[in-house]
Amino acid sequence: MAPEGQDVRAGTVPGDLSRLSLNTATTKHWTLREAVDGAARAGLSSIGPWRDRVQEVGTVEAARIIEDAGLRVSSLCRGGFLTTDDDVAAQAALDDNRRAIVEAATLGTRELVMVVGGLPAASAPGGPALPYPARGDVDPARDLVAARRRVADRIGELAPFAAGHGVRLVLEPLHPIFAADRAVISTLGQALDIAEPFPAEVVGVVVDTYHVWWDPDLQRQIARAGAARRIAGYQVCDWILPLASDPLLSRGHVGDGYVDFATITRWVRDAGYTGDVEVEIFNESVWSAPGDQTLATMAERYVRHVLPHL
Amino acid sequence: MAPEGQDVRAGTVPGDLSRLSLNTATTKHWTLREAVDGAARAGLSSIGPWRDRVQEVGTVEAARIIEDAGLRVSSLCRGGFLTTDDDVAAQAALDDNRRAIVEAATLGTRELVMVVGGLPAASAPGGPALPYPARGDVDPARDLVAARRRVADRIGELAPFAAGHGVRLVLEPLHPIFAADRAVISTLGQALDIAEPFPAEVVGVVVDTYHVWWDPDLQRQIARAGAARRIAGYQVCDWILPLASDPLLSRGHVGDGYVDFATITRWVRDAGYTGDVEVEIFNESVWSAPGDQTLATMAERYVRHVLPHL
Repeated sequence: MAPEGQDVRAGTVPGDLSRLSLNTATTKHWTLREAVDGAARAGLSSIGPWRDRVQEVGTVEAARIIEDAGLRVSSLCRGGFLTTDDDVAAQAALDDNRRAIVEAATLGTRELVMVVGGLPAASAPGGPALPYPARGDVDPARDLVAARRRVADRIGELAPFAAGHGVRLVLEPLHPIFAADRAVISTLGQALDIAEPFPAEVVGVVVDTYHVWWDPDLQRQIARAGAARRIAGYQVCDWILPLASDPLLSRGHVGDGYVDFATITRWVRDAGYTGDVEVEIFNESVWSAPGDQTLATMAERYVRHVLPHL
Repeated sequence: MAPEGQDVRAGTVPGDLSRLSLNTATTKHWTLREAVDGAARAGLSSIGPWRDRVQEVGTVEAARIIEDAGLRVSSLCRGGFLTTDDDVAAQAALDDNRRAIVEAATLGTRELVMVVGGLPAASAPGGPALPYPARGDVDPARDLVAARRRVADRIGELAPFAAGHGVRLVLEPLHPIFAADRAVISTLGQALDIAEPFPAEVVGVVVDTYHVWWDPDLQRQIARAGAARRIAGYQVCDWILPLASDPLLSRGHVGDGYVDFATITRWVRDAGYTGDVEVEIFNESVWSAPGDQTLATMAERYVRHVLPHL
């Protein structure tokens, strides 16, 4: 859909931005310091950094930059990629997640977002083509049930370490368009099933409108997540059509697509969520816009389509 | 993924093809007669025609062509598109579905596949851009909950007419990638919820691997569908990556992508399904191949990846 109307300039938006957070993926070309300064200029109170931008300056320095600007950290993106069926790769993945947990604790956030990874068939060295086993067998590289079981097992392995650092593993269901290659957690209900054996302060979930807006069971699962006190974050961006050639980059500003933000935001509010609302947009045209303009649009759309229902 | 290995020539496949059906969308450029002749040459026993190819020759003549070739009709594609919030358009949609019901009965199939339609926002005249209502309201054109309710209501309006003609309305859950613009039924569980108030011989469901392979609740919902005797069809094709620029055309031959056909086929078998297995592929490169070659590949892949588990 075409953007609707004129966007106001940063700082002129009439509305309370105290729960609006900039996920740094939205301003992809900004360094951490630029993103922090931009968020502060726009009147935001928090930021959700990605690990690459944190690691560029080092975790301790990143924490100082954010604190000096008077911002909170809404979450750290991201851990995960736990689906491999190779034991050596699994140990490397667990080690990397332990590093991410330490980074989250150092940054002063308890919410570590987890994108759990896709099928082994989609991450094979040399490309996706994998031979099938002998006729009649289930192919381990395409065995979605087994990949999902490994995720649950490895969350169990990480949970004590996360708990020891005061960090929550925040499972992110991704849109089923990404089930093969990025995340075998495809619904909020499934994420909650995996979280259920663990305390709410150790394993949570994030509700990202882009990924879950289509789910016929969404209202019920958001209520379930709220009752269990597992909603660790609410991320907003829009489902736009036509899809970009890389569907990962096919997200739009709130209001540019098909998501019913009024209804979903009310469900999240009614579930008792009082935390930050992150805007995380992967989109080449958003990325090519000046960062301050992106933040102004973010704020204006948030005030118009999200805040009245929050 | 790359096609794997050499495909055998039509007629030389060692395997029982008595349950394999050609959905005519797979051989898009063939007329109904060409598709019927091709299916018969390849040793198939049934065909699943689309309405456009049936209407080209007229329904009575189409029925004769198929019967003369000794084939069964596995299903008719398709009715649906019932989500409009405009009363006049809704009456036109219901009328068209009544015509489709008569066509199915005339062709001698009881299974009419229903693709129920997307959000009003995605089918607005003049393109998808629609203004939002005043701040704070839910936008009717993006109201997914209401669109889904209209589908259930209109299935209820059509059910007596379908029952009177011995035809079953077969609800097709489409992959959530199509929730905005093609089908607000996104999961098998949701389709079964809509079907539940009606007798199993009047409202059923179809399991299409492309649309449902990712669903964490799939095993349970297939079993539920089987127990209720509502499985009206099983369609197979593969989820390939990268997606085609038009994701509607991003389907592959069985074995070229990520779907675990062994596991899903066993679930369908264990649910008691004994009907036809349609191959329905929308893909420009499949469409540009000679039809006989497409049928040979279809048969070879079916024998290798589906039949052993059926």
